[in-house]
Amino acid sequence: MADPWKECMDHCLEVTKEAGKMIQEALQKDISIMQKSSPVDLVTETDQKVEQLIISSIKEKFPTHSFIGEESVAAGATSNLTDNPTWIIDPIDGTTNFVHRFPFVSMSIGFAVKKEIEFGIVYSCQEDKMYTARKGKGSFCNGEPIKVSGQKDITKSLVLTEMGFKKDPEHFKTMMGNIETILTIPVHGIRSPGSAAVNMCLVACGAADAYYHMGIHCWDMAGGAAIIREAGGVIMDISGGPFDLMSRRLIIASSRTIAERISQVIKAFPVGRDDIEG
Amino acid sequence: MADPWKECMDHCLEVTKEAGKMIQEALQKDISIMQKSSPVDLVTETDQKVEQLIISSIKEKFPTHSFIGEESVAAGATSNLTDNPTWIIDPIDGTTNFVHRFPFVSMSIGFAVKKEIEFGIVYSCQEDKMYTARKGKGSFCNGEPIKVSGQKDITKSLVLTEMGFKKDPEHFKTMMGNIETILTIPVHGIRSPGSAAVNMCLVACGAADAYYHMGIHCWDMAGGAAIIREAGGVIMDISGGPFDLMSRRLIIASSRTIAERISQVIKAFPVGRDDIEG
Repeated sequence: MADPWKECMDHCLEVTKEAGKMIQEALQKDISIMQKSSPVDLVTETDQKVEQLIISSIKEKFPTHSFIGEESVAAGATSNLTDNPTWIIDPIDGTTNFVHRFPFVSMSIGFAVKKEIEFGIVYSCQEDKMYTARKGKGSFCNGEPIKVSGQKDITKSLVLTEMGFKKDPEHFKTMMGNIETILTIPVHGIRSPGSAAVNMCLVACGAADAYYHMGIHCWDMAGGAAIIREAGGVIMDISGGPFDLMSRRLIIASSRTIAERISQVIKAFPVGRDDIEG
Repeated sequence: MADPWKECMDHCLEVTKEAGKMIQEALQKDISIMQKSSPVDLVTETDQKVEQLIISSIKEKFPTHSFIGEESVAAGATSNLTDNPTWIIDPIDGTTNFVHRFPFVSMSIGFAVKKEIEFGIVYSCQEDKMYTARKGKGSFCNGEPIKVSGQKDITKSLVLTEMGFKKDPEHFKTMMGNIETILTIPVHGIRSPGSAAVNMCLVACGAADAYYHMGIHCWDMAGGAAIIREAGGVIMDISGGPFDLMSRRLIIASSRTIAERISQVIKAFPVGRDDIEG
């Protein structure tokens, strides 16, 4: 049987390339403009433009499909995942990086049918790296197959996570405590690149061995989830249970051993769900 | 008067390009070889080969000059900085990144005369970015002029630092406490790319606004020091006093305001000096 979603993935790749150019152009703007007045407005403007471009292009071709997009949700749409073919879109992942032109800024699209991710595409705009994965067909970066490092020994691993200021002192304390716990295992090091989707791709191509995060959204993870799985990696919930796209938390790793070790040692803090309104 | 060190800088650029290819080739090796047996041996081997290539090439052309190289010092040479023209070399900055093929791996060369840095070159090998700076002549990335963001408001800044496991529990506590202090100012975010020389270049080109570090070496900082200064940035000691190449610590920033704020809020832990044996 021919792949029923091939046409969708081909179209996704086309629209990602087009939208990627739009982000690259926005990044070319003089940094003094970016930093002056309101960099937040600039990123929001680009974010919205890119998401509109993607959604309108896909809608025209696949009018019955559903969408969950970061900007649409921000504008009041629900992020309820149904069985209908659904495009889960983050037009700019790494908005702080975008404002500063820090090297990792990406666009992420995941495509789910009956709540299962069928394919994912992540484009790291400044690196010009196009990561693609189709269920059962492997993961690729710019057309070249990629795979996880296969590392099983956490003491030889490079771990990714992000740290930010959290208003709730307990959450902040837990976040910092987790970093301390991981560092003192010890591991080779911790890196924080600032884009969830890029982090997932870095583990998928073996440049890091694990990534954990609480507080991200389904649109940060959907594209990367396909890429990490097809690259031979492991994806699970912070608790060690099955990965839940709507749970706002994940652990990914080069091996089950490392993923489980992380789930055992880090503490969770409550982050809500993406589909709580659904 | 003609620039007395132009010939040195031209030669430095040539040898950096040649040595950069050597690092890029080493990074092409199959990751299973990198991870198997002993990745540490592989990085040491490449580190030494690159440093030997650089030093022998420079020695041939400038036989009276002095050298401070990471690998030479590891092999027992002193790192005493004299008034003699001195090449300060880090063949691979970001060795953990190198082992994992994480995107930031660089080579750094600084050239000092009478203890003043005259020029610096940092080559970020995977990004293929060649950063160059000559005293009084500006900073460049791949030939294009670069400058710092100019940001003065620390609450709008992206801050770089590195975190690693430290055997001394007090040092570790201070390091983690400093990260907490910076995050709660609050700032836009903290990133840890894993290469001191690249961090300096990221601030120099405006992709981040500050970087602080304790425990690095003169060969991590010498090349970047020229680049950050010529890009209009500020470089100072952790204490807020003048930068000291041999002190193993630094703050750099897009503005004096931000650098001073960091020096006021973070705590120092003892790291020794590079020239203690000199």
